[in-house]
Amino acid sequence: MTSSQDSAYMACAVKLAENGRYTTDPNPHVGCVLVKDDKIIAEGWTQRAGFAHAEVDALAKTDNAWGATAYVTLEPCSHYGKTGPCSDALIAAGVSKVVVAMQDPNPLVAGRGLQKLREAGVEVLVGVLQQEAEKLNQGFFKRMTHGLPWIRSKLAMSLDGRTALASGESQWITSANARQDVQLWRAASSAIVTGIDTVLYDDPQLNARVDFDAVQPVKVVLDSQLRMPLSARLLENAVDVWIVTCSDDALKQQKLRDVGCKVFEVEARSGRTDLAQVFKLLAELQINTVLIEAGAALNGALLDSGLIDEWLIYMAPCVLGDQARGLFSLSGMLTMQDKKALRLIEARQIGPDLRLRYQAKTD
Amino acid sequence: MTSSQDSAYMACAVKLAENGRYTTDPNPHVGCVLVKDDKIIAEGWTQRAGFAHAEVDALAKTDNAWGATAYVTLEPCSHYGKTGPCSDALIAAGVSKVVVAMQDPNPLVAGRGLQKLREAGVEVLVGVLQQEAEKLNQGFFKRMTHGLPWIRSKLAMSLDGRTALASGESQWITSANARQDVQLWRAASSAIVTGIDTVLYDDPQLNARVDFDAVQPVKVVLDSQLRMPLSARLLENAVDVWIVTCSDDALKQQKLRDVGCKVFEVEARSGRTDLAQVFKLLAELQINTVLIEAGAALNGALLDSGLIDEWLIYMAPCVLGDQARGLFSLSGMLTMQDKKALRLIEARQIGPDLRLRYQAKTD
Repeated sequence: MTSSQDSAYMACAVKLAENGRYTTDPNPHVGCVLVKDDKIIAEGWTQRAGFAHAEVDALAKTDNAWGATAYVTLEPCSHYGKTGPCSDALIAAGVSKVVVAMQDPNPLVAGRGLQKLREAGVEVLVGVLQQEAEKLNQGFFKRMTHGLPWIRSKLAMSLDGRTALASGESQWITSANARQDVQLWRAASSAIVTGIDTVLYDDPQLNARVDFDAVQPVKVVLDSQLRMPLSARLLENAVDVWIVTCSDDALKQQKLRDVGCKVFEVEARSGRTDLAQVFKLLAELQINTVLIEAGAALNGALLDSGLIDEWLIYMAPCVLGDQARGLFSLSGMLTMQDKKALRLIEARQIGPDLRLRYQAKTD
Repeated sequence: MTSSQDSAYMACAVKLAENGRYTTDPNPHVGCVLVKDDKIIAEGWTQRAGFAHAEVDALAKTDNAWGATAYVTLEPCSHYGKTGPCSDALIAAGVSKVVVAMQDPNPLVAGRGLQKLREAGVEVLVGVLQQEAEKLNQGFFKRMTHGLPWIRSKLAMSLDGRTALASGESQWITSANARQDVQLWRAASSAIVTGIDTVLYDDPQLNARVDFDAVQPVKVVLDSQLRMPLSARLLENAVDVWIVTCSDDALKQQKLRDVGCKVFEVEARSGRTDLAQVFKLLAELQINTVLIEAGAALNGALLDSGLIDEWLIYMAPCVLGDQARGLFSLSGMLTMQDKKALRLIEARQIGPDLRLRYQAKTD
């Protein structure tokens, strides 16, 4: 039986979880409040992988949690990872009731934390604000349940759907506000994925330029033929650079390793790295959330693949005309039935631009 | 000195004016409330050209307006048109104060109505909710002040800025909701303008299909070479069809007149009808508001011309790919400085689609 008070306390826990949005990767960000006599006595959240989980963080902030109710955005863990199991900590502190937003999809936990609590006589309630909690960690949950990261592709275009002039010039279509907003999405991602063509043409840095503490995303270049130049700017700072290739050229691979890259091989598909294999590989490497920043060819292939969870599109209030470069290279679009249908989930003004988010259509 | 009560009463008058949105053309739609002892004693609005103006309509609804204040969205007229001057009616009814949102830009009125009121000892206040009042009749005001209609072009596109497949197939990119919304814009327009290519390719009807009383817009076809087929569907119903051409072919012109069209000649410019002349002509023919429904070539020329006041764009949540047809044919876009900058004024979800409105950038 969920009360409106349960929802209100859980909303606080969700809010606390968001504190860890940029720092807990590859772990989920979790929030917890401890409530006694209808008052919040302690708040906690997961700050970084390897540090205290939300429940332990909250328990450390009160000297008497005896008889309290804990609201947690995710099932407390029951396993020994880098930190001790949270379910044990809650039991030891004498918490009498635990309300969780959702069960942990991690197969190492999967209901066992709740079971342990129940066996210790703690009352357990599951499913308060579950949808909100799921949104907190879409990437982590998708990795746990599907073996794939949450895959988001970012595009910037004119209002007539153009990403660059015929000459290739693309700086800048969108506003400084939009470009700063992109930095936040980068910071919230585990990996930025781009294609070798973008590296060769734009030579981007792809780091998250934010003025707060954030785990920098890994930079991943899809480079089927190992054309990656050793002088690329994205090799300049200390962030991991992973090259995913179809080439077994040992010499080229070694040169890239010598400058600090990791090199992974996947199979080829239609002349490029097999995208399904790429993302499966990334999930195995604990990548929860991918932000793709690439050109029309890769985005066309991604749209065709059906692998994308979310399109993040910045639309500037300008027109570049039909000689300019399009958003998606797609062939074989013969009738209206072939159109790729998506679903608008958000439209927001960012400075003079619009930020649009679309997901795959499910109906 | 404007009070918040003045604004509140004027807001009522603005709301009443909107009742005439679809029916007063080519006259402005105007609203009026009469207030006595802090109570609205009568409401009026202009319903149709040739019928009672808002002030007279309101006065007819009370038997004692002596000492009342009239709130009117536009300066009361002082001239004898199809109806008697409203300023005289207000004076005769003994109204002691008149609050108007704005002076009439019509050179036949232009402050003379207000002067007449003042001379009769009526207190006059001008400028309450002026911006809101200006929006009511953008087309009429632009015609009065610039000798041009308010020119709006409607486009429907995929999220990657495509209006049709390479084959030309375009039915339907946007949803039934969006297409119904277009009917309202048609009904609120004095004229629908299209190019002969659209007539030849799509054979549209271009009438406003709405289930309420509305003055049907005139249909205007820009047809520089008089290629208009006598079998076109837009000739099928009784609404005026105007052909604007550069051709002086008397036989062809006569054939079109024989089926009920009016034919107007303008000069040619870059191989098409001179767009500035076209819209000047339409304003002279009392067209306040134009809705353009045309293809990429005409829209490209319009964008280049700088004549468009507003772009009305329906964006469907689908992708057609870079082989599909673009929104604007534009050449000579060599550097980012050449991009056509606009300003977003509205983004609204209509069913699954987005309706976006842009105006020319002014800064």
